[in-house]
Amino acid sequence: MSNGKENAYFTSDINDRERACFEVGIKLGALYHILCGIPISSDPQVIESIEQGIEASISCQPYVKSVRININRDKIQGTKTTEFDYDELSGILIAATVVLEFNSIEIIAKVEWIEELSYPLMFIEEIRNTN
Amino acid sequence: MSNGKENAYFTSDINDRERACFEVGIKLGALYHILCGIPISSDPQVIESIEQGIEASISCQPYVKSVRININRDKIQGTKTTEFDYDELSGILIAATVVLEFNSIEIIAKVEWIEELSYPLMFIEEIRNTN
Amino acid sequence: MSNGKENAYFTSDINDRERACFEVGIKLGALYHILCGIPISSDPQVIESIEQGIEASISCQPYVKSVRININRDKIQGTKTTEFDYDELSGILIAATVVLEFNSIEIIAKVEWIEELSYPLMFIEEIRNTN
Amino acid sequence: MSNGKENAYFTSDINDRERACFEVGIKLGALYHILCGIPISSDPQVIESIEQGIEASISCQPYVKSVRININRDKIQGTKTTEFDYDELSGILIAATVVLEFNSIEIIAKVEWIEELSYPLMFIEEIRNTN
Repeated sequence: MSNGKENAYFTSDINDRERACFEVGIKLGALYHILCGIPISSDPQVIESIEQGIEASISCQPYVKSVRININRDKIQGTKTTEFDYDELSGILIAATVVLEFNSIEIIAKVEWIEELSYPLMFIEEIRNTN
Repeated sequence: MSNGKENAYFTSDINDRERACFEVGIKLGALYHILCGIPISSDPQVIESIEQGIEASISCQPYVKSVRININRDKIQGTKTTEFDYDELSGILIAATVVLEFNSIEIIAKVEWIEELSYPLMFIEEIRNTN
Repeated sequence: MSNGKENAYFTSDINDRERACFEVGIKLGALYHILCGIPISSDPQVIESIEQGIEASISCQPYVKSVRININRDKIQGTKTTEFDYDELSGILIAATVVLEFNSIEIIAKVEWIEELSYPLMFIEEIRNTN
Repeated sequence: MSNGKENAYFTSDINDRERACFEVGIKLGALYHILCGIPISSDPQVIESIEQGIEASISCQPYVKSVRININRDKIQGTKTTEFDYDELSGILIAATVVLEFNSIEIIAKVEWIEELSYPLMFIEEIRNTN
């Protein structure tokens, strides 16, 4: 729990579901822009290390219960057969799920490359009351 | 307007206020992590250029109506009296306001360094129905 | 000029040309990773604002004489005809030139997408003695 | 090894030591700006995960032999006793060593917070011929 002082900065007519939506949006926006541009290769150990590192990082942020990053192994280019043969993280490669709890609201949100939109969509999959 | 296909990825029990909260959270999370680490000096033209550049960038994102970044001029260290005398953007220097509209919901959210929390708090100042 | 204390941390057998090469490498590495992931559209004013903002920022770093960023307008996708119709900066869009001077060595270095390498190559175009 | 095509983009009067200095500068500039702003707590597992993730990432870049990141555990604030009690990576916390080899030149470079400069200095500790 936080000490609650931060709540005074919010408009008083916001409810817990709305606040949970805001908080999980922050985490996805942060996660995505931290990942963008990070060098990567198709080596499974490299991918896992990066996934775990940024998962651990985002898990430090307020109200986060869990984070799972799934870099799209099928679309990574770069096997390091030459020095320049590696890739960089961008929207097409990034998939992640954040589970967050604010008061008694649990929310699951994702970022995923959506082929029909040609866009790394951030969306809310579930909002539920844990009471 | 978007073409609306993206809405199908969201849980069906999300309302427009909740969605607006999510979308503005994404923008603040993105904005903050794009700004972190950017070199800066106390030269007003440098500060304004950086503010305007990132404002223009975040304004490209979905549903954003306006963005105002206010780097805290009073706390910047670095007058370039020596080569190493400059600063980098971090939470203590970053303040911004994002106004976003999703359907008929307009929302105003901010990030600001809050002294009593020692934290760059992201919060929602106002949610209103524009109908 | 710096106060010179920093030089004591370098190996004593480094000469001014080598040092200039190192310093300009730092600036290109920084510039590139600051730009990666920044939202962008094909609107000329958006592009120019972002170019100018990050030029101003990198110009704060030690020994930099000038920075010119040229986002590749021909390859930007995103005219904002829908909310999701915008792009993000990545290697294919980024071109920049940094001119730096260390002691009497002036050096010009670039980052540019090289089609035959499918890679955003950073390279040194010229090293010259200004004496 | 790379296929060597990239060398044609460099000025012809650059030697291997100068090129190694340039390449290691790029890596330090990239590493630093990837790390800046990443959320972190004093939990040793969080710190190690982030160190390993970004080490793996930078190791994908051309000519890198090894990378060691040492986040300064003594200066991290944030034990997660409240939701907002965590820190973010910035110059004061970042230390790293990159070992790189270009042709027969091996080079060791570092970034470290230098108290007397109040600056995260990037410097070259050693350049040696491996022949």
